[in-house]
Amino acid sequence: MTHACCPGSYDPMTSGHLDIVDRASRQFDRVTVLVTHNPNKQGMFNVDERIALIEECTAHLNNVEVDSWSELLVNYTSEHDISCLVKGLRSAADYEYEVPMAQMNRRMTGIETLFMEADPRYGHVSSTLMKEVVRYGGSVEGLVPAPVLRALQRRLT
Amino acid sequence: MTHACCPGSYDPMTSGHLDIVDRASRQFDRVTVLVTHNPNKQGMFNVDERIALIEECTAHLNNVEVDSWSELLVNYTSEHDISCLVKGLRSAADYEYEVPMAQMNRRMTGIETLFMEADPRYGHVSSTLMKEVVRYGGSVEGLVPAPVLRALQRRLT
Amino acid sequence: MTHACCPGSYDPMTSGHLDIVDRASRQFDRVTVLVTHNPNKQGMFNVDERIALIEECTAHLNNVEVDSWSELLVNYTSEHDISCLVKGLRSAADYEYEVPMAQMNRRMTGIETLFMEADPRYGHVSSTLMKEVVRYGGSVEGLVPAPVLRALQRRLT
Amino acid sequence: MTHACCPGSYDPMTSGHLDIVDRASRQFDRVTVLVTHNPNKQGMFNVDERIALIEECTAHLNNVEVDSWSELLVNYTSEHDISCLVKGLRSAADYEYEVPMAQMNRRMTGIETLFMEADPRYGHVSSTLMKEVVRYGGSVEGLVPAPVLRALQRRLT
Amino acid sequence: MTHACCPGSYDPMTSGHLDIVDRASRQFDRVTVLVTHNPNKQGMFNVDERIALIEECTAHLNNVEVDSWSELLVNYTSEHDISCLVKGLRSAADYEYEVPMAQMNRRMTGIETLFMEADPRYGHVSSTLMKEVVRYGGSVEGLVPAPVLRALQRRLT
Amino acid sequence: MTHACCPGSYDPMTSGHLDIVDRASRQFDRVTVLVTHNPNKQGMFNVDERIALIEECTAHLNNVEVDSWSELLVNYTSEHDISCLVKGLRSAADYEYEVPMAQMNRRMTGIETLFMEADPRYGHVSSTLMKEVVRYGGSVEGLVPAPVLRALQRRLT
Repeated sequence: MTHACCPGSYDPMTSGHLDIVDRASRQFDRVTVLVTHNPNKQGMFNVDERIALIEECTAHLNNVEVDSWSELLVNYTSEHDISCLVKGLRSAADYEYEVPMAQMNRRMTGIETLFMEADPRYGHVSSTLMKEVVRYGGSVEGLVPAPVLRALQRRLT
Repeated sequence: MTHACCPGSYDPMTSGHLDIVDRASRQFDRVTVLVTHNPNKQGMFNVDERIALIEECTAHLNNVEVDSWSELLVNYTSEHDISCLVKGLRSAADYEYEVPMAQMNRRMTGIETLFMEADPRYGHVSSTLMKEVVRYGGSVEGLVPAPVLRALQRRLT
Repeated sequence: MTHACCPGSYDPMTSGHLDIVDRASRQFDRVTVLVTHNPNKQGMFNVDERIALIEECTAHLNNVEVDSWSELLVNYTSEHDISCLVKGLRSAADYEYEVPMAQMNRRMTGIETLFMEADPRYGHVSSTLMKEVVRYGGSVEGLVPAPVLRALQRRLT
Repeated sequence: MTHACCPGSYDPMTSGHLDIVDRASRQFDRVTVLVTHNPNKQGMFNVDERIALIEECTAHLNNVEVDSWSELLVNYTSEHDISCLVKGLRSAADYEYEVPMAQMNRRMTGIETLFMEADPRYGHVSSTLMKEVVRYGGSVEGLVPAPVLRALQRRLT
Repeated sequence: MTHACCPGSYDPMTSGHLDIVDRASRQFDRVTVLVTHNPNKQGMFNVDERIALIEECTAHLNNVEVDSWSELLVNYTSEHDISCLVKGLRSAADYEYEVPMAQMNRRMTGIETLFMEADPRYGHVSSTLMKEVVRYGGSVEGLVPAPVLRALQRRLT
Repeated sequence: MTHACCPGSYDPMTSGHLDIVDRASRQFDRVTVLVTHNPNKQGMFNVDERIALIEECTAHLNNVEVDSWSELLVNYTSEHDISCLVKGLRSAADYEYEVPMAQMNRRMTGIETLFMEADPRYGHVSSTLMKEVVRYGGSVEGLVPAPVLRALQRRLT
C-alpha cells in the first residue's frame, strides 16, 4: 500500500493545495494532509480550524485524512509508514526553496519527496497572497475552496 | 489617453526607480508614481517624506504625478482610470516575485502589468541595499537621485 | 499615438501569441505583429502563410496589422515609428533569454521592450511544442487559434 | 497497482538515470524505463544497444522493465496503463524545461509527472556531458553504471 | 601575496562553509574567515563563540585566520589589504542574492567577489536549516564539523 | 605563484571577455586566455585569428598570455600548472550552465572554477549576439574591443 503525505502550514488551504491533494489521492492508496505548525507562531487560523477546513474541503476524497504535527517531519513519516512526501511547485523559485528540505529529509530517513507542477489556474495562488487580498477587501473566489472562502469572510467582518 | 501607474514603497526612491518612471513617462501620456504603504509598518521615511522626495526627483517630467495608497492596489487603478501598471525587473528572481501579483491583479480587474528590464547601471540597486550601505557609512552617490542622497545623509547624522 | 510591435517567428501563431497581441491591442493605439525570419532557415510554414494565418486570427482586432522583416529589428521599428516592443514571458527562463536582446535593442535606438506575463492557460505553449505534438498525432485544440489548427491538420495529412 | 514510467533518450543511461529508476522502483509496484527516440536522429548508441545496457544496469531490480517508443509519449502511457511519469531534476533549469511537457501531457490524457530531485552525487551528470568527457579521453567512472562504462570504452577505441 | 576573505554570519559554521574555506586556502596565500554581525541581532551563538568554533574547525589550515566585523564590509577589506572576497554558491537563487552585494562592493572599492560552487555533498546545507533540524531533534552529523556538532548538542540540552 | 586560466571559444573576444581577463589579471600572478575549440566546428574566425585578436586586445596586460587547446580542458590545466579556471557569469542561466562543467572538472583533477559576475555594462554581451547584430548591419561599438570591431567590419564587407 502506498501512503503519501502532503505537509504544509495550510493557513488556510487554497484551491492550489486542494488540487495537489486531489491529484495525489489518485496516485496513492492513501494520502495524509499534514498541518505542520510552529507552536510559537500565530497564524490567521489556529491548527484546529485549519484541520476542520481541510476536512470539509476533502470530504469527497475517500482516501484522504488530515492530521497535524509540530515536530520533525520525518519523525511523523517514519511513525506512520508514509512512503513519500508530495509537494506542489508553482515556479523555479519554489523548486529552489524545496530542494534543500527534500534532500535533508531523504538523508535523515530515506523518505522521497515527489514534486507535482501546480495547475496553471493556481500558479499564482499562495495562502499569504490570498490573506493579503482578502484583508484589503479583494475577492479570492475560485482561488480558495468554498468553505475557506466563507471562513475568510467571517474572519474579516 | 494612456495612463500608467508605477506602484512601490519607495522608501526611498532610488535611481533605478527614477529610471523606470522616466522611461514610462516617454511611453505613456500620463504616469502616476504611487507610494503603496502599510499603515502598520514603519519605514525609514514616512509617506509624506517619500512623496516629497519623488516630487522633487520627477519635477522635470511634466506628465508624472505622485500619489499614495494603503488599500487594494486595483481599487486605486480602477478609480483613477489607470490603463496599466509598470514595474522594473532587475533579475529572474524579481520576475518570479512579481508574476503572482500581476496575475492576481489582472484576474481581479483585468489590469495589465507591463515589465521593463532595469537599466544595467541600476541592476543591483534596491531601497533596502541603499539604506543598509548608508547606515554603515558607505556612499550611494550615483545610485539614488540627489534629493534622496541629501535626505539620507540628513537622516543619518 | 502609441504604436507597439510584437515581433516573433510565428511558425505558426499560437493561442499564447494571440493572447499577447489581443492584450497589447487594448493598451496601444496600434499594434504591428511582425514576422521576423531568416531567409536561410526553413520553417513549417513560409512567411506568406504565417502572415495569412495571423491576419485571419487577428481579423477581429481593428488596430492590429501584420508585416514581415528579415533584417535588423530596430531598423524596422525606427522606420515605422514604433514606440515599443511587446513580448510575452512564460517563465523566468524566457525572461533570461529575452533580456540581452531587449538591452541591445534599447542601446541601439532607445526602443523599449515591455514584457507581459503569459496567461496561465498558455504558459506551456510554444510553436515548437505545438508542432511536435501535432507531428506525433496529438491534439493541440484550444492551444492554437482555429485557423492554425486547420492549417496544421492540412499540413500533416 | 501503481505503474510508473521513466521516459528518456538514455544515450546512454547514466548513474543519475539509474538512481532515479532505482528510487522509483521503491515507490511504485512496477516501473517501465522507456527509451524514447526519434527514428531520424542518430545517437551514439542505437535503440537496441540502449535497451540492452539499461536491462543490464537494472537486472537487480525485479519490478523494472525496459521498452522503447518513437511516437507520442501519452499514447504509450495510455495503452500500457501507466499511472504516472517520473523524471529527475538536477536544477531549476531542468524544472523550467520539463514543466511545459508535463502540463501538455497532463492536458492530453490526465497523466501526472512526478519529479524527484537528483541525488547530489549526480547533479552534474548528463548523457551529453558524459559522452563529451569520454570523447576527449576523460574518465566518467562512478558517474555511469559499469556496463555503460565498458560500452563507452569499447565504442571509442 | 594574495589574501582572500570569506565573510558570513557563521551562526554556526557548517561543513559547507568549512569546505569553501578549505578550498580557498589552497588558492590563496592567506584566508581570513570574517564573522560579520549586526550588534542588534541575536543569533544562536554569540560572536566569540562563533569565532572559537571556526578557529577549532580550521586549526589544521595554517594560512587561515578568523576575525569579526560589524561595520561596512569594504572598510574591513580595504584596511586589511584583502585582495578578494570568496563566497560559496549552492544554487541559482544564491547567485541572484549575492550579485547585488558583489556589484555594490566592487563599485565602492573595486574589490572582487570570487564565487565557488558548493560541493554537492553540502548543496542543501545552511546554518538556518541545520539549526532548525537540531531544534526538532534531528541529526546533522556529517553536515557540520565535529566541534559545531558538539556545541549544538550542548546548546540544546 | 598563482596561475589562472580563462577558457572559452572567443569567436571573437567581446568587451565582456576582456573585462573578465583584465580583472583576473589583477587577482592572479599569471593569466592564460585559452581558446578552446572543436576542430570539426567552423566559427566566424579561425583559431589563429581569434588568438591574434586576443593578443592585440590584451597587449597592455603584462601577465596575460594566449594559447589554444582542442582536447580535454583539465589535461591542459594539469600540464601547465594552472591553479584555477576563471569564468564570467552574466545571469543565473549562465550559472546553471557552467556548474556541471565546473563540478566535472573539479572531480577529474581537483581544479577549481572561480566565477566573477559580469560588469553590468556587458551583462547582455555574447559573441553570438555580437555576430548576429553585426551580420544585420547593427553597431556593436563599445561592446567589443576596437581590434575586434575592425575585424568584424572587414569580415562583413
